[in-house]
Amino acid sequence: MSLSLYFSPGACSFVPHCLLQAAGVAFEPKMVKLHKGEQREPAYQAINPRGQVPVLVDGDAVITQIAAISVYLDEKFPQLGFLPQHGVARAKALETLMWMNNTVHPTFTHVFMPGKFSDDAQVQANIKAHAQTSYGKLMLELQDLVKSAQQSGQAWLSGEHFGPLDAYALTLTRWGTMAGVNPQNIPLLWTFVERVAQHPPVQAVIARERLELNLFKS
Amino acid sequence: MSLSLYFSPGACSFVPHCLLQAAGVAFEPKMVKLHKGEQREPAYQAINPRGQVPVLVDGDAVITQIAAISVYLDEKFPQLGFLPQHGVARAKALETLMWMNNTVHPTFTHVFMPGKFSDDAQVQANIKAHAQTSYGKLMLELQDLVKSAQQSGQAWLSGEHFGPLDAYALTLTRWGTMAGVNPQNIPLLWTFVERVAQHPPVQAVIARERLELNLFKS
Repeated sequence: MSLSLYFSPGACSFVPHCLLQAAGVAFEPKMVKLHKGEQREPAYQAINPRGQVPVLVDGDAVITQIAAISVYLDEKFPQLGFLPQHGVARAKALETLMWMNNTVHPTFTHVFMPGKFSDDAQVQANIKAHAQTSYGKLMLELQDLVKSAQQSGQAWLSGEHFGPLDAYALTLTRWGTMAGVNPQNIPLLWTFVERVAQHPPVQAVIARERLELNLFKS
Repeated sequence: MSLSLYFSPGACSFVPHCLLQAAGVAFEPKMVKLHKGEQREPAYQAINPRGQVPVLVDGDAVITQIAAISVYLDEKFPQLGFLPQHGVARAKALETLMWMNNTVHPTFTHVFMPGKFSDDAQVQANIKAHAQTSYGKLMLELQDLVKSAQQSGQAWLSGEHFGPLDAYALTLTRWGTMAGVNPQNIPLLWTFVERVAQHPPVQAVIARERLELNLFKS
């Protein structure tokens, strides 16, 4: 069965991109240029009418939403242990994944694409400024999560093994540098993210997506 | 082990509330009065520093985030089949659960609590109006999902059995009536939600939370 992933450089599709790379299987990375509006073209709309990345295509199956893809890949490659397998440990990992996905990620959307929430330029500027402040606080909360995972002896934020929470933490922190968060103000989180970036499959995806980790401009 | 659920009437905690009721086990429903700010009091902050509902307490474990709680309860009560058990079917159910949680739900937050996104009253009014339009479109998208589940012979939106997507669909549609969506404009979705409301465990939770299903005012 052929496996392919529609992704956009630097977008949250980075998460399943890293998981596929870590799984060590053959897959076709298919780039979607969001800045050129390719997600609104009929060809892509036929794959994902919501016009978002990522999309995982596994044979006949088309799966969207990074958390759903992450759980699917966790089941498909159990030897990788992308998430804790059972019970409370699994629930706590999913809890953080959900928070990243329904709180941190949408807050960045308000910084990066305020036009989704108003058609008025003045209102958009206000929304953006407010979200930048919120995002800074969320970065400190993420840093606390990394800190307590480390204090409890966890090797990765996802658990014993590298997984979706680690890749997502990198993406969200990288977005933080675009939202005006200075890496110097989140030293523990930044050190963690730099370690994630050096994990070989992550390194390979960073190279393929041609990403710069720190986009902070003082 | 004692099982308890912190909930607020009409909030998204309705979802795990219905799952626990459907499981037929003893649990303590603990009401948090969000309109009285109880979620910001030290006692509740000690349970969930994010000050949100729901919180599931299972013995020593404290789990937040409805999708994480849903997956946890699905594993705890496998005989209920709250979600499809494996592979693509499970991934597709989670995909919809994620979309409800990271797209539909936050859009309602813009209608209901625009103060989360700006401190300016004028800006808040603009955000709210924009989100009401967006929410109407999302209701049509939800209706399409219910329609295609029915066309493919699925008994429930969650799959073969009643599950989190069904309870969430009810909550989101009920919120829709508060956001100005007339049930007459989403007839197939409304009929489905009325059927969900008559499912005995859902009926019991609606009675406990004292909910009115249709809050639309023309």
